[in-house]
Amino acid sequence: MRMVDLIAKKRDHVELTNEEIEWMIQSYTNKTIPDYQMSAFLMAVVFNGMTPTERLALTQAMVRSGEVVDLSAIEGIKVDKHSTGGVGDKTSLILGPLVASMGVPVAKMSGRGLGHTGGTLDKLESISGMTIELDMERFMTQVNDIKLAIIGQTGNLAPADKYLYALRDVTATVESIPLIASSIMSKKIAAGADAIVLDVKFGAGAFMKTLEDAKQLAQAMVEIGRDAGRETVAFLTDMNQPLGFAIGNALEVKEAIETLQGHGPKDLEELVLQLASQMVVLAKKAPSVELAYTQLKEKLHNGEALNKFKEFVRAQGGDVAQIENPDQLPKAKSIIPVIAKKSGYVERIDALAIGLAAMKLGAGRATKEDTIDMGVGVVLNKKVSESVCEGDVLAYIHTNGSDNEEAMMYIQQAYDISKDSVCPPTLIYEVIA
Amino acid sequence: MRMVDLIAKKRDHVELTNEEIEWMIQSYTNKTIPDYQMSAFLMAVVFNGMTPTERLALTQAMVRSGEVVDLSAIEGIKVDKHSTGGVGDKTSLILGPLVASMGVPVAKMSGRGLGHTGGTLDKLESISGMTIELDMERFMTQVNDIKLAIIGQTGNLAPADKYLYALRDVTATVESIPLIASSIMSKKIAAGADAIVLDVKFGAGAFMKTLEDAKQLAQAMVEIGRDAGRETVAFLTDMNQPLGFAIGNALEVKEAIETLQGHGPKDLEELVLQLASQMVVLAKKAPSVELAYTQLKEKLHNGEALNKFKEFVRAQGGDVAQIENPDQLPKAKSIIPVIAKKSGYVERIDALAIGLAAMKLGAGRATKEDTIDMGVGVVLNKKVSESVCEGDVLAYIHTNGSDNEEAMMYIQQAYDISKDSVCPPTLIYEVIA
Repeated sequence: MRMVDLIAKKRDHVELTNEEIEWMIQSYTNKTIPDYQMSAFLMAVVFNGMTPTERLALTQAMVRSGEVVDLSAIEGIKVDKHSTGGVGDKTSLILGPLVASMGVPVAKMSGRGLGHTGGTLDKLESISGMTIELDMERFMTQVNDIKLAIIGQTGNLAPADKYLYALRDVTATVESIPLIASSIMSKKIAAGADAIVLDVKFGAGAFMKTLEDAKQLAQAMVEIGRDAGRETVAFLTDMNQPLGFAIGNALEVKEAIETLQGHGPKDLEELVLQLASQMVVLAKKAPSVELAYTQLKEKLHNGEALNKFKEFVRAQGGDVAQIENPDQLPKAKSIIPVIAKKSGYVERIDALAIGLAAMKLGAGRATKEDTIDMGVGVVLNKKVSESVCEGDVLAYIHTNGSDNEEAMMYIQQAYDISKDSVCPPTLIYEVIA
Repeated sequence: MRMVDLIAKKRDHVELTNEEIEWMIQSYTNKTIPDYQMSAFLMAVVFNGMTPTERLALTQAMVRSGEVVDLSAIEGIKVDKHSTGGVGDKTSLILGPLVASMGVPVAKMSGRGLGHTGGTLDKLESISGMTIELDMERFMTQVNDIKLAIIGQTGNLAPADKYLYALRDVTATVESIPLIASSIMSKKIAAGADAIVLDVKFGAGAFMKTLEDAKQLAQAMVEIGRDAGRETVAFLTDMNQPLGFAIGNALEVKEAIETLQGHGPKDLEELVLQLASQMVVLAKKAPSVELAYTQLKEKLHNGEALNKFKEFVRAQGGDVAQIENPDQLPKAKSIIPVIAKKSGYVERIDALAIGLAAMKLGAGRATKEDTIDMGVGVVLNKKVSESVCEGDVLAYIHTNGSDNEEAMMYIQQAYDISKDSVCPPTLIYEVIA
């Protein structure tokens, strides 16, 4: 087989065989196919797409390029959840204990990632003592014991995806739905999930800018999951304003605790309950989404989910006192309000701009080497459809630095204030199964 | 400037500026842009093409990537000719002395190239003593003295084109009209021509398979030439059968001599006269193509063109006796006829298959290191529209080896014999100026 022929096939709309894709990914992982051939292939995919058969083959080849986590020692159906990423997305922190409280085993491997705030692991590490490095045996024992463990990714999962992603990043070939879909799905499958719930976000603060694109991506991933024998459900959710109020690591942990106490932001609680309901049904711990929803809501409001969170924090060495008294979590030195300059109704909050504000304050990483300031971030005070009077507080910045001007400017720019009243936005557009 | 942004622009149909293209080609030549970014860009060009402004900028940037030959010491308008390549194309050998005999200065830098036979230089070297290595001073003096010199390319002309071509070859990005057009034109412009005549061939034995594609390529090159200040005329000519009868190095030299003696194959003579007429007009040595044609035909038949060829061979150290007696040129040991297996009319001769037969016999190079067998090749005995009876000779192979079966099989396969009579094919479809 010659890579130049496979590039020509893709360029000419000829479907590649499973064997060709397997050979290509194996050879690229082994460095026997050079980057310059792979990038030409990727650009051809950007233009010509991939057939369902091809993207499944690509996903499975990437899974086979590395280790596959064996979770069979854990009893029950392991359901994983993945979000395509948004601003203020702390759902994993709440979902984990919530579905675990229903007896669903949650064996989550999470990432740190680059972005406006840290990843789930970083957020957890704002709780003092918390370790996210467990060996596989302890990880699985903990899930069997208390149904919940969250650790950093171990092993060499889907290395081909890692290499391809690095190449796509510098060759303008990121924006391709089959490439995005197979990248996400290969990592989830390699991480050992039996079933997968996907939260595909769209809007200014998300990777997918339109509902249309998000839907195509969701459908591609659901098909790949199904064809790979992993039941997959995808949500299409709005990211035209941040989720909840808090953006920042310890600030998001605090908001997650509030939600687990039953008094979190409504949008966040609703999304968590809907995602959790699907997870519980996929894990066969409830016969219907409606029934799961009712039971989950109860557990969120009767303290069971919160207790599960404390159990989890304790099991991984974290300081439970901080959960009981979130004021003990890392805090910024100053809290400065951002004031509305005109009256009206909040029409839109550019989530990307809010993310950039959090980044400026030190909540995120631009490169792997950057360190995160756990206490800083943004807390919104007004969300879309709320009325605002000149002089009202739109949001607060939590800051340790003096360089707050830029963050506050981003926040001012993020808010669109309209004269006319604005309807509350739809949060969940569709669930694709 | 970042290459990833330029790739994204091309991917998204945004026109690149001249500065961006200049920077890109300069940086690629300096190796500060890696191959993997350039190949992604090239694939985006395959899909989205280039605007006339972009392809002109690309051509000029490639010219500027290396040296530009200064032919100003040569008196008169220097007209170069380029063929996109076909099987049995020995026009340069005839055109050179023919137009030189009209007083047009021909300062030709030629190539060896890879292919079914050698390039013009290889063919010339089948004449014993012939040197194609003259220094620039001697080269220009010779053109001023006798109006004709043909040498190997000297200097570092359009290195960016060389690097890009090597990359395109292994990334399935050769097939792009703006890339082909700017590649050809950058080399011609760097070689110092004032005006250019292009022979764009199409058909089974050519790089362009259809008249449509050939026309687009021709138009692109004529526009680039015009916008770069080099008057350019392009012919669209048929390559659905080899040109003339002979395919092979010394065999083609022999056929060129016959044509210079006024009794060459009709198709070859006609194409040469038409190309030469345009060259003479561009060089302002005749007021019209019709007048040029009449004068050129005379020179082909009264021995003046042949004498110019001898003068040229002598000037570059070649053995003129071989021109006067072509039987002294290198010869193969055996000549074996390929016999028709059925009767009818020749409908088509797959020029590519004939080329492969010549290659098998040793007439060409697959890699730069291969050596060429000057004497071997194929001589057609029947051309399109001729009648054939079972047992007639279709063609002869001239061979030094025992491995003739494959060559003969290719030739058998190349001939399509039809029951119905066949009209003689059109040779020149259009002249674009």
